[in-house]
Amino acid sequence: MAENGLRDKVLSLASMNPCVKKVEYAVRGPILTRALVLEEELKQGVKKPFTEVIKANIGDAHAMGQRPITFLRQVSALCLCPELLDEPLFPEDAKQRARRLLAACGGQSVGAYSVSSGIELIRQDVVRYIERRDRGIPANPANIYLSTGASDAVMTMLKLLVSGEGRSRTGVLIPIPQYPLYSAAIAELNAVQVNYYLDEERCWALDVGELRRALGQAHWHCQPRVLCVINPGNPTGQVQSRKCIEDVIKFAWEEQLFLMADEVYQDNVYAEGSEFHSFKKVLFELGPPYSTVVELASFHSISKGFMGECGFRGGYMEVVNMDPAVQQQLSKLTSVRLCPPVPGQVLLDVVMNPPQPGEPSYKRFSQARGLAPDMFFCLQLLEETGICVVPGSGFGQREGTYHFRMTILPPVEKLQILLKKLSQFYVKFTQEYS
Amino acid sequence: MAENGLRDKVLSLASMNPCVKKVEYAVRGPILTRALVLEEELKQGVKKPFTEVIKANIGDAHAMGQRPITFLRQVSALCLCPELLDEPLFPEDAKQRARRLLAACGGQSVGAYSVSSGIELIRQDVVRYIERRDRGIPANPANIYLSTGASDAVMTMLKLLVSGEGRSRTGVLIPIPQYPLYSAAIAELNAVQVNYYLDEERCWALDVGELRRALGQAHWHCQPRVLCVINPGNPTGQVQSRKCIEDVIKFAWEEQLFLMADEVYQDNVYAEGSEFHSFKKVLFELGPPYSTVVELASFHSISKGFMGECGFRGGYMEVVNMDPAVQQQLSKLTSVRLCPPVPGQVLLDVVMNPPQPGEPSYKRFSQARGLAPDMFFCLQLLEETGICVVPGSGFGQREGTYHFRMTILPPVEKLQILLKKLSQFYVKFTQEYS
Repeated sequence: MAENGLRDKVLSLASMNPCVKKVEYAVRGPILTRALVLEEELKQGVKKPFTEVIKANIGDAHAMGQRPITFLRQVSALCLCPELLDEPLFPEDAKQRARRLLAACGGQSVGAYSVSSGIELIRQDVVRYIERRDRGIPANPANIYLSTGASDAVMTMLKLLVSGEGRSRTGVLIPIPQYPLYSAAIAELNAVQVNYYLDEERCWALDVGELRRALGQAHWHCQPRVLCVINPGNPTGQVQSRKCIEDVIKFAWEEQLFLMADEVYQDNVYAEGSEFHSFKKVLFELGPPYSTVVELASFHSISKGFMGECGFRGGYMEVVNMDPAVQQQLSKLTSVRLCPPVPGQVLLDVVMNPPQPGEPSYKRFSQARGLAPDMFFCLQLLEETGICVVPGSGFGQREGTYHFRMTILPPVEKLQILLKKLSQFYVKFTQEYS
Repeated sequence: MAENGLRDKVLSLASMNPCVKKVEYAVRGPILTRALVLEEELKQGVKKPFTEVIKANIGDAHAMGQRPITFLRQVSALCLCPELLDEPLFPEDAKQRARRLLAACGGQSVGAYSVSSGIELIRQDVVRYIERRDRGIPANPANIYLSTGASDAVMTMLKLLVSGEGRSRTGVLIPIPQYPLYSAAIAELNAVQVNYYLDEERCWALDVGELRRALGQAHWHCQPRVLCVINPGNPTGQVQSRKCIEDVIKFAWEEQLFLMADEVYQDNVYAEGSEFHSFKKVLFELGPPYSTVVELASFHSISKGFMGECGFRGGYMEVVNMDPAVQQQLSKLTSVRLCPPVPGQVLLDVVMNPPQPGEPSYKRFSQARGLAPDMFFCLQLLEETGICVVPGSGFGQREGTYHFRMTILPPVEKLQILLKKLSQFYVKFTQEYS
């Protein structure tokens, strides 16, 4: 009984799970709560020094007015409502995708549960996407786990990794600043948060010396077993250099740390000279012993990138060098939640496997990504070879065809180098995007 | 290092989270794994004593060939692909639902995150559904939490409830047999499973004497704080009587247990004489002190019922008498996962708020549920009043109109009673379904 004679609640702040109490999640914390109240007050006509609340607290592209990519939504609407397949409304390539995906669903319905790791066909498409991204380094559908957004997979992976009591409790190294999912998950799972600080002076770069410092101190009060890296950085936006990623992998190998690479912003790299390298690719390029030993889980999501489809809660995790017995445990654990939402799986598939040149939706899709196909070609050419040409769209061209203009003014020796580079790039480009 | 000179994995069976190792989930366990292998072998032409694997392991209606309800899918396709709103393809009431739902989405897109408890408008529709179901007992959108299927909400609720060490660890009473989500969640959270046995001799009835026995023994090794009830039973199919529910509520009150009521099969009650009573309704009908004290969380899902939309992962939880400070903690905890999938929220809304008489889709929707509207009326009339009449569809009637036939042969006194009952039922029926 409480002092006032009333019965205490069975579930109260005093009796509840103390780990949940420790969880903090600033992205949706008191500021957002207050913002929602202010919004309501404005709606009711209360006078404020502003007329609307602008929510810049969360990476939610559609809420900010970005329009969804038509092709993604066409394919998913066709999957939800197969009677649309008989209508002339949507392009044939969208219908083909939908038929292919429906054939892979139980009872040909997105309303059926999928296997817990996600629809096999979609995991195969994820594999092809990864192999393209990583320039041919192989992936395996058995190592792909589709998820309910990346948050779900991060939480599941950490759940597997947490054990021990007192000083033997699992320590998890996370960057500061970090996306607060990590600190929240660590609190919830009663693991030990080990902070390493990003270097603001050097654009929030990750420094292995700082990792070493953090690890050294952590050994006194926990057993550090996990290293979380967010690349490109959230909230810092920093893109790690290839050299930095190599150093981190070597450090994880030396110190026997399980690597978790949050790479959900991999398609949001804009700064000149910046390039995204996946941890998986660098790990394999380093070769043995790293490539055969370092355990890695990397995460991707459909909430970021050009699509920004947050509401669908789709994503995947790829695991590398994971103990097969633990993978069985992982499968069992995910099966308790049955499966990730199938509409999110479908959308992920289209992101992994977008319209190709020659397909009816290719042009509209490429333009929706913000670039005409020839502009995209020329920009990539410049980025990768230094060759500067002019896209045909600057001059006008027949719809559905693409050109570029180049001068032949350079001296012959230079022209030979140029043509060789151009031809190599052309082969690579068409392999990558077809 | 391992004995063979190879390095041990960082994450191995020996080092992983021991709670996850204890998790068992038979619904998708080794039998299913084996079934998938057999399926693959059959596909490759291997001879077996059977030609197809029939999966009866999981309640997955669509995988078994049940067709989705057209109206549900039309509304969600319109939400995914708003360009369909301008096409004459879908009925006007589906478009109205879609417009209403899109207006409630961030940036009018289902690709935006929703608030973590789910779109406010949909929670309001859930409230109306609950109030209709519970004959007017009030509900509150602030107590509704949309979820990624019911499993997600059950797990979240248990997570809040687990605390203590050793003998003070939270004990959770669950029925045996049970749907193994409960035992799996208890193992994962390192809570203590307390079994109470359902009585097979009495069609798997729940007996409060058995609850008392289980609780008495549990006090020796844990602190029992939660009582889970599954009604209608899974896997037993048993539907609890109103009296039984009253007894369980009184028991929870006496013993200070938090009640978790898994009611996901509430729309799957078929047996003659069986009727579903929600724990919420019975709790409020019992009145104080029960109705003001007993803490209750009840769960519902779009994976069961007439819709069987498992793949969308939609559902909700309603909490009653929960400490407001704990509700804040619950909101915080769910916010770490951002939000339940919005397509599942949309589908839930249509289930909560199906087509009404007079709307263009009403007839098709009612028939898809397996009953013409007049047949449904007559059956309900018989069930609730004992009055037997004949539905108009047995005779033929103009499309979109509904009739029933009754004779006036009974003696005048009986006819007066009959007409009074009929008129009362008519008022109730039209209130309930309009």
